[in-house]
Amino acid sequence: MYSPRIQKILKAAKISIGDRISVQDGRKTHEGLLMPSPETSDPESIILKLDNGYNVGVSFGKSTKIAKSRAHEPRAVKEEARFELGKTSREILKLKFDPKKPLVTLIATGGTISSRVDYKTGGVKTIENPQDFLHNVPELVDMANIRLTSPFAKMSEDMNYTDWVELAKAVARELNTGAKGVIVTHGTDWLHYTSAVLSFFLRNLTKPVVVVGAQRSSDRGSSDAGMNLLCAVHTALSDMAEVGICMHASIMDDYCLFMRGTKVRKMDTQRRDAFRPVNDLPLARVYPSGKIEKLKKDVRIRSEGKVESDTKFEPRIAIIKPYPGSDPSVIDYHVSKGVKGFVVEGSGLGHVPTNGKGEWISTIKKHVKDGIPFVVTPQTIYGRINPNVYTNLRVLYHEAKAIPGEDMLTETAFVKLGWVLGHTKDPEKVREMMLTNYAGEISERTLPETFLY
Amino acid sequence: MYSPRIQKILKAAKISIGDRISVQDGRKTHEGLLMPSPETSDPESIILKLDNGYNVGVSFGKSTKIAKSRAHEPRAVKEEARFELGKTSREILKLKFDPKKPLVTLIATGGTISSRVDYKTGGVKTIENPQDFLHNVPELVDMANIRLTSPFAKMSEDMNYTDWVELAKAVARELNTGAKGVIVTHGTDWLHYTSAVLSFFLRNLTKPVVVVGAQRSSDRGSSDAGMNLLCAVHTALSDMAEVGICMHASIMDDYCLFMRGTKVRKMDTQRRDAFRPVNDLPLARVYPSGKIEKLKKDVRIRSEGKVESDTKFEPRIAIIKPYPGSDPSVIDYHVSKGVKGFVVEGSGLGHVPTNGKGEWISTIKKHVKDGIPFVVTPQTIYGRINPNVYTNLRVLYHEAKAIPGEDMLTETAFVKLGWVLGHTKDPEKVREMMLTNYAGEISERTLPETFLY
Repeated sequence: MYSPRIQKILKAAKISIGDRISVQDGRKTHEGLLMPSPETSDPESIILKLDNGYNVGVSFGKSTKIAKSRAHEPRAVKEEARFELGKTSREILKLKFDPKKPLVTLIATGGTISSRVDYKTGGVKTIENPQDFLHNVPELVDMANIRLTSPFAKMSEDMNYTDWVELAKAVARELNTGAKGVIVTHGTDWLHYTSAVLSFFLRNLTKPVVVVGAQRSSDRGSSDAGMNLLCAVHTALSDMAEVGICMHASIMDDYCLFMRGTKVRKMDTQRRDAFRPVNDLPLARVYPSGKIEKLKKDVRIRSEGKVESDTKFEPRIAIIKPYPGSDPSVIDYHVSKGVKGFVVEGSGLGHVPTNGKGEWISTIKKHVKDGIPFVVTPQTIYGRINPNVYTNLRVLYHEAKAIPGEDMLTETAFVKLGWVLGHTKDPEKVREMMLTNYAGEISERTLPETFLY
Repeated sequence: MYSPRIQKILKAAKISIGDRISVQDGRKTHEGLLMPSPETSDPESIILKLDNGYNVGVSFGKSTKIAKSRAHEPRAVKEEARFELGKTSREILKLKFDPKKPLVTLIATGGTISSRVDYKTGGVKTIENPQDFLHNVPELVDMANIRLTSPFAKMSEDMNYTDWVELAKAVARELNTGAKGVIVTHGTDWLHYTSAVLSFFLRNLTKPVVVVGAQRSSDRGSSDAGMNLLCAVHTALSDMAEVGICMHASIMDDYCLFMRGTKVRKMDTQRRDAFRPVNDLPLARVYPSGKIEKLKKDVRIRSEGKVESDTKFEPRIAIIKPYPGSDPSVIDYHVSKGVKGFVVEGSGLGHVPTNGKGEWISTIKKHVKDGIPFVVTPQTIYGRINPNVYTNLRVLYHEAKAIPGEDMLTETAFVKLGWVLGHTKDPEKVREMMLTNYAGEISERTLPETFLY
């Protein structure tokens, strides 16, 4: 609670909790959202949530000035906005369909892109009305008829494989019922798991599927939500029949990157350009103006044909990350709990510790004999597993029969392993499928310029 | 086995297994080390190990030409080489000590930098004589008296905490008995664990400690061993009293980076410039010529004073990496096996999955109550944990009392947690120490230019 004095000042300035205000204190000016005063805080201090997400307390002295700020308020959706409701979603808006414009379906699943600051707690919570997406980008509705659907609203780290199955089916259904492309809005933490899922689950893909998120919620001045969505619509209307992630390319608002869904990863906790291609070039640069510059030659081109969703998936899989002194008996534990396959994040070219006793390798060998596959991916993130260089590698891959994950990301290998095990339990077939390129997940060679792109 | 025809041709050209040869076949010329022909291979194909580490088979036709190559043979150590033997090591060379030159101790622990191609298997094995280090860099002995010691020879992924303790004690001993600086040669896979270990274990550091490895063994044309060692000696003789990793800065042989031991990570399986600073600038550029360009202002400067080794360490710690659908009961399993503390690689700003049921958070909360600390580091590698933005983060950090790992690397947080638990079991003290900056492991703010440096 603020002190009675502060409450009086706020009231006089017609400022309520949640308003965007500026507080001038001597030479310094702070701008942000007015937060409630926590119990533990000095009631004479104004608590602001800054655009960088941090809270700051400004002690309110005699010379302190406070004013409501008008910047960054959400723009209203234009009156002529047109939407058609997805049949699978709850009704959101009732607006007229413009038959001269293409149809793009936007599937909202949750995450920061559909979050706002919670003025009660100072944290961030999910918005309840998906139309809030469009507040910052009214131009979307000039470009296309946007069909909004929302099968569920979850943060990405809370999604599980049943959500993935539902999402893939929804995407296929939309693509097969008139949508020129589909945009999936999504939390960013594990966005790259979902982009990998859609890459494997959607077979015979003939249209763009654009997975997009935001690192800063749309009620922040520095939000990337608007530009990411705008670029996503351009991508959804483009000729690229690929599953990819479309996010800021740099900390500038210059353009987005459209990155193949199996070769991309969140590489920073907070930056707007956190999503980077790994062991691969981006598919394209996408500008807010609509200009698209392709960066790869093998981009699949839009065509006709029904998109299939092949969602058979074995969810009982695990990721194991060895570390110095780590005990491989954790593998036995997982197996006892029913785990049917493992992705092991190996060190360097694909090592596991031997500690001179070789228990990691012998543990893996034992379970491989029982028909449980082990795929090894690089802890280094970048680069490729090479099963031939060192003697211990030869033992692990040629004797113990671990599967070298080539240059796949751990996250991609995890999704692929679940998908492969959804189709076969035959160890030889699992190995063959894991080493077959289904969705651009394995590069034949790694271009030097892809390192830390 | 090669065919009798090939064996005859090789004999005529005086070529033996392991020789560096060139094979010309039409327009293409391959150069590499001649490998034995594996049983599964066509006996008419010449098997070469290329400088990139891969084997290639060249079918030997009528127009194929083969010749011994003289390039890249190890240079002999100059006759005037001077070494003094470390008292702790087995005797390697008996050479005269030059009192006009400074003393640098080189502690050899194993890894690619002390490996050669095994001509029997085509893999790589540890060299048996540490003097082989110096074959490619005879200039080292012009710069300093090099004292060689080798407490153990292991690949880095096989080292454990007793090795770390032994190594830190050896480094302190050398620094306190006349060495101007110490170089540790080491396997690269988990080099960054050891650099973090030495950063915490060596207190009151007054001289340089340079950890160095090689991505390609010294008998390959593209080896980085020589230049890395040369730059390491320059660094060991410099005024920087820091523990750091010195490795190639780029795929060119232009200069090395000296990177703070707690803020560096292997980011590629194979590239010579695989070691990159994370959330930090490198301490310095180090050129083979000896030129040093410092890149950070807070580099500690060489001084007098005894270096302490504070090696108290709790090895019963674990790293946990959540993934979609992951089961937090693995934490209970580790605790049942005696684990006393965890580093959790959280998603995004530091999340764990809730799956709507919150079992990850409740599992952590339960064990924190029992006095077991959980430190959360970013799965994204780059960036910082922020315990305040989302509601679930507030629950995890403020209610369940997980410790936000700031911008520490997982590997660094792991080593630090073991070191902290070696000193105290008091939860409040553990939290306080984990959030205290001891060895540059926590940056106050992250410079934008450090992302993907």
